[in-house]
Amino acid sequence: MKKIGIIGGAGYTAGELLRLLINHPEVSIEFVHSSSNAGKPITDVHGGLLGETDIVFSDSHPLEDIDILFLCSAHGQSKTFWEENNRPKGLKVIDLAQDFRDESEGYVYGLPELQFDKIEAADSVANPGCFATALQLSLLPLAKAHLLPENGDINITALTGSTGAGVKPGVTTHFSWRNDNISVYKPFTHQHLIEISATLKKLQPANTATINFVPMRGDFPRGIFAVTTLDCPLTEEEAIKLYKDFYQNAPFTVVSDRTIDLKQAVNTNKAIIRVEKHGKKLLVTCAIDNLLKGASGQAVQNMNIMLGIDQTTGLHLKPSAF
Amino acid sequence: MKKIGIIGGAGYTAGELLRLLINHPEVSIEFVHSSSNAGKPITDVHGGLLGETDIVFSDSHPLEDIDILFLCSAHGQSKTFWEENNRPKGLKVIDLAQDFRDESEGYVYGLPELQFDKIEAADSVANPGCFATALQLSLLPLAKAHLLPENGDINITALTGSTGAGVKPGVTTHFSWRNDNISVYKPFTHQHLIEISATLKKLQPANTATINFVPMRGDFPRGIFAVTTLDCPLTEEEAIKLYKDFYQNAPFTVVSDRTIDLKQAVNTNKAIIRVEKHGKKLLVTCAIDNLLKGASGQAVQNMNIMLGIDQTTGLHLKPSAF
Amino acid sequence: MKKIGIIGGAGYTAGELLRLLINHPEVSIEFVHSSSNAGKPITDVHGGLLGETDIVFSDSHPLEDIDILFLCSAHGQSKTFWEENNRPKGLKVIDLAQDFRDESEGYVYGLPELQFDKIEAADSVANPGCFATALQLSLLPLAKAHLLPENGDINITALTGSTGAGVKPGVTTHFSWRNDNISVYKPFTHQHLIEISATLKKLQPANTATINFVPMRGDFPRGIFAVTTLDCPLTEEEAIKLYKDFYQNAPFTVVSDRTIDLKQAVNTNKAIIRVEKHGKKLLVTCAIDNLLKGASGQAVQNMNIMLGIDQTTGLHLKPSAF
Amino acid sequence: MKKIGIIGGAGYTAGELLRLLINHPEVSIEFVHSSSNAGKPITDVHGGLLGETDIVFSDSHPLEDIDILFLCSAHGQSKTFWEENNRPKGLKVIDLAQDFRDESEGYVYGLPELQFDKIEAADSVANPGCFATALQLSLLPLAKAHLLPENGDINITALTGSTGAGVKPGVTTHFSWRNDNISVYKPFTHQHLIEISATLKKLQPANTATINFVPMRGDFPRGIFAVTTLDCPLTEEEAIKLYKDFYQNAPFTVVSDRTIDLKQAVNTNKAIIRVEKHGKKLLVTCAIDNLLKGASGQAVQNMNIMLGIDQTTGLHLKPSAF
Repeated sequence: MKKIGIIGGAGYTAGELLRLLINHPEVSIEFVHSSSNAGKPITDVHGGLLGETDIVFSDSHPLEDIDILFLCSAHGQSKTFWEENNRPKGLKVIDLAQDFRDESEGYVYGLPELQFDKIEAADSVANPGCFATALQLSLLPLAKAHLLPENGDINITALTGSTGAGVKPGVTTHFSWRNDNISVYKPFTHQHLIEISATLKKLQPANTATINFVPMRGDFPRGIFAVTTLDCPLTEEEAIKLYKDFYQNAPFTVVSDRTIDLKQAVNTNKAIIRVEKHGKKLLVTCAIDNLLKGASGQAVQNMNIMLGIDQTTGLHLKPSAF
Repeated sequence: MKKIGIIGGAGYTAGELLRLLINHPEVSIEFVHSSSNAGKPITDVHGGLLGETDIVFSDSHPLEDIDILFLCSAHGQSKTFWEENNRPKGLKVIDLAQDFRDESEGYVYGLPELQFDKIEAADSVANPGCFATALQLSLLPLAKAHLLPENGDINITALTGSTGAGVKPGVTTHFSWRNDNISVYKPFTHQHLIEISATLKKLQPANTATINFVPMRGDFPRGIFAVTTLDCPLTEEEAIKLYKDFYQNAPFTVVSDRTIDLKQAVNTNKAIIRVEKHGKKLLVTCAIDNLLKGASGQAVQNMNIMLGIDQTTGLHLKPSAF
Repeated sequence: MKKIGIIGGAGYTAGELLRLLINHPEVSIEFVHSSSNAGKPITDVHGGLLGETDIVFSDSHPLEDIDILFLCSAHGQSKTFWEENNRPKGLKVIDLAQDFRDESEGYVYGLPELQFDKIEAADSVANPGCFATALQLSLLPLAKAHLLPENGDINITALTGSTGAGVKPGVTTHFSWRNDNISVYKPFTHQHLIEISATLKKLQPANTATINFVPMRGDFPRGIFAVTTLDCPLTEEEAIKLYKDFYQNAPFTVVSDRTIDLKQAVNTNKAIIRVEKHGKKLLVTCAIDNLLKGASGQAVQNMNIMLGIDQTTGLHLKPSAF
Repeated sequence: MKKIGIIGGAGYTAGELLRLLINHPEVSIEFVHSSSNAGKPITDVHGGLLGETDIVFSDSHPLEDIDILFLCSAHGQSKTFWEENNRPKGLKVIDLAQDFRDESEGYVYGLPELQFDKIEAADSVANPGCFATALQLSLLPLAKAHLLPENGDINITALTGSTGAGVKPGVTTHFSWRNDNISVYKPFTHQHLIEISATLKKLQPANTATINFVPMRGDFPRGIFAVTTLDCPLTEEEAIKLYKDFYQNAPFTVVSDRTIDLKQAVNTNKAIIRVEKHGKKLLVTCAIDNLLKGASGQAVQNMNIMLGIDQTTGLHLKPSAF
């Protein structure tokens, strides 16, 4: 049994991580750090675990006692953490913030469909962003085949659930406002564009396509549904084959032969992808759970790969379906 | 045209009041006070009014310029307001907080189905609470007929929408938590029990019934749905007649011959009531919109009555239905 | 008072029409035809009207007794209706189906922002489709200015509420499936593209732009939220001015200076539009209520114009906001 | 590995059963029978399983090839099934309909918290109803202690999710109607009262309490939230101890020390219970997932018990939380 520690234990990604790791057969949780909740049972904050654990939030984080550390704090705080703490030799780290997604300081970008081997060999993994995961999985096979349009547009709109905005309540996560409401935010400027572009450059270095990304706030708590259109020379049949071949060894990324919907992916670690051709346009739809494949589920998948065990361990989740 | 002023203009009840009064044929809005938003267009906060008004939040509240004042601040602040401000002679006041629902300082409790004549003669009206409105309308005819059970129980569960919790975001109004969720709060101790009991005592002074009230948080933004059961000697036919007779002159309170649902009342000033008998038990279900009949709609109804105009003026609202 | 008749009275658009016309000061409802519900009070089907009307569904439709007829049946049935019935001279007709949106048989396409004068002179109006309304209002000013991109793409994704799918229950309107779910349907092939293209050709006959339209099922009952991106040579300032100028006399179409959200338009007859520029791309977002500006509200607006009265009569609706 | 067959494979309870059994370590699925879907992959109907199984709906049901049969058809069809088919010796049967909940024909009522030993020895188990499960778990400890009130009232209101109404679409499961709506159905007459009363009689045969049960349709897909009030002589401390003692060996039934909410139980096989005392009244709130502890989860729990394996096998489910 590998020993686990979690920093930033009261947030949404830490909660989801705990809900996964509590049933993971190969790890035990040593500490869940939260300065503001120290001393409280974690079930006071993560109520869904009631009856399943007696773990109490800790105000210490003895890094030397653990094998793997998950950093679940807000963006920017992972760097701060390492400025204030020494990293024991041999400690593996998975950062769920965006601090090291540029692969600085030896971190490997943790998208298993792209970098399985590097993750397997890594001590430090930067877990991808939620939108970034959905959008990259929508485009990786094309980039690999150097089929992103030269000087052309990649048009993406994608809706995200309210959990993407974190646990701190605010105007746009107030139930009275969000319920049955739709809106756009950060159009063309979302911070995940940086990691998406970096990945696409890796696979198709000469690509000059422009990504026009309009993120939207959806009126649901979990999930990302992304719609991508772009010019593509392949037939529909060729495009589907390209995607299926690319993901044939990816246990969680599934190319559907039918129209998809968001809830197929909700409460699972899967990415469900659909590829269609309409005239000159390729239409790629992709559904993930932003807290799982888009955050904590992918973090556990990365942990499994880093530990050399089956990457699906602890991730055979019952879909919620409804 | 009567001139109107509003204090506490950024909250939910003020917003709903503005959405009503902007189309009211007999009044004009002189000022909407909000210290935190002074100088901003009210459409910055109440976005649904975009294109319909150029009113700007004010940091002053010239009481001498208006005929009617609506107090829409938090509970307790209406009293504070009058400690800090002089009330011009002739100014009519409608308080939407709970500060004067005990009819202190000359305020009349503003439930038109009970106190039409007193409201008509009043200078100061205390607008009832949202739960209090739904629960009293469920019981008034029985109390009037002295049919509340002696030493018996009146069992009530009622669900309220998230707008009942106000504009300030918090844990239980976070979309991620509230969506598809149900919970109980303040069981047996909700503050509205005070005004409900006071009303029932007026009508059936000797009544010794106990109200067992369990309020619940519903996963919808607007509305209250109340379920009341109690022993009753009447047949179903007699009970329905009792309710229909009692409300025959009430333009907004309707006794349905069919099963009801919450959305029949949503976005209207109506209270929809259904009366059934099962064995010895009377079952009364009641649906209102907490922001309209439960707050701002009833406030406008009270204003109309105080002004001596038809009480439905400005309140012929299209039901949302969906 | 003009006399009104409604065919297809049990559907969603008829229900919304009734909820509007019941409070309209210039018309009276003579009959609401529904063969399957004949004899029942309309409140059995349209429960939100309980307490407001005693109208009963009729199995006859005496066209000679009315001034204006609304056809609210399914697509295709309006043509059938006229095959089976004689149209009295002088009867004005507004068709909410798509049967005459090609302006065949003397029908005028009823988009007031485009064809006010023609509607005013018309005896027969074909009411636009819901998506068609939102998408045209997003593009009209550009088409008028001949600024639709030559040989370029207009990329549109838009979400619609479940009421857009009609009253008949089905797999994709089952609450268990639809709640918190998102999906795509009829991508690139939605039937409203026909009327949109016809309109754009009217304004910019030489336009060769391709509309890539991906409609989506939203998990809300009312509303359409459309996101349009296209190349545009104007600056943001110029583009905003173009839109504001174009809509300066349109009482329901509002260009917002701030980010918009769907619920600003819900339960109103308004179209709320936001125009932004990002790099070379113009981003136009538009929110309407699919049952109001997208159907029955626009039908009443058209009726008002045909009657020569203020087009906003009976359409000063309180926004639901929540 | 025990071999499993499922009859009625296209419904909601079969879908949830499949989502559970696909990951169950001790069983393999031999056939999933659905006459209307025979030949189709089960993922065409149960889309959440895409990428996890290649099972195809079968039009045959070779009972001699399996060890355990789940009957997931509509109420009444289980009896019909046995009229038309022979039951092989040794075949264990779990019926999810209500046909044998009266324990006729050798069926054992499958509520593990009450009848663990009988279930362990049974060949045929009748799985409890969803409301019945929540309501019995709310009352069992009191009945065992003979504390149900003599000649008194047990007042229960409970909300259920839309999945409780089954897969067939209808008026009250139409998203346009159900969303943000609340209503009452079958008050005082719900069919589950029969099995509840039978159970309570077993434990407190002399009890003469009346159950006043008002079921409500909630605007969420999954879950039951039940509120029970009754007179009780115990102090709050004594009552909590009574419940905790009763459920100390029940792995899925948890007595909470804090206020509970529905989503704590959603997507788990748990029943979360809260016990409070207010004056003379005991308030018991209970949350379950209607498709899991209220149906398919409990069915798997019963299967585990019948197989002599740990009753939690395959039921360590990640709570959805959001």
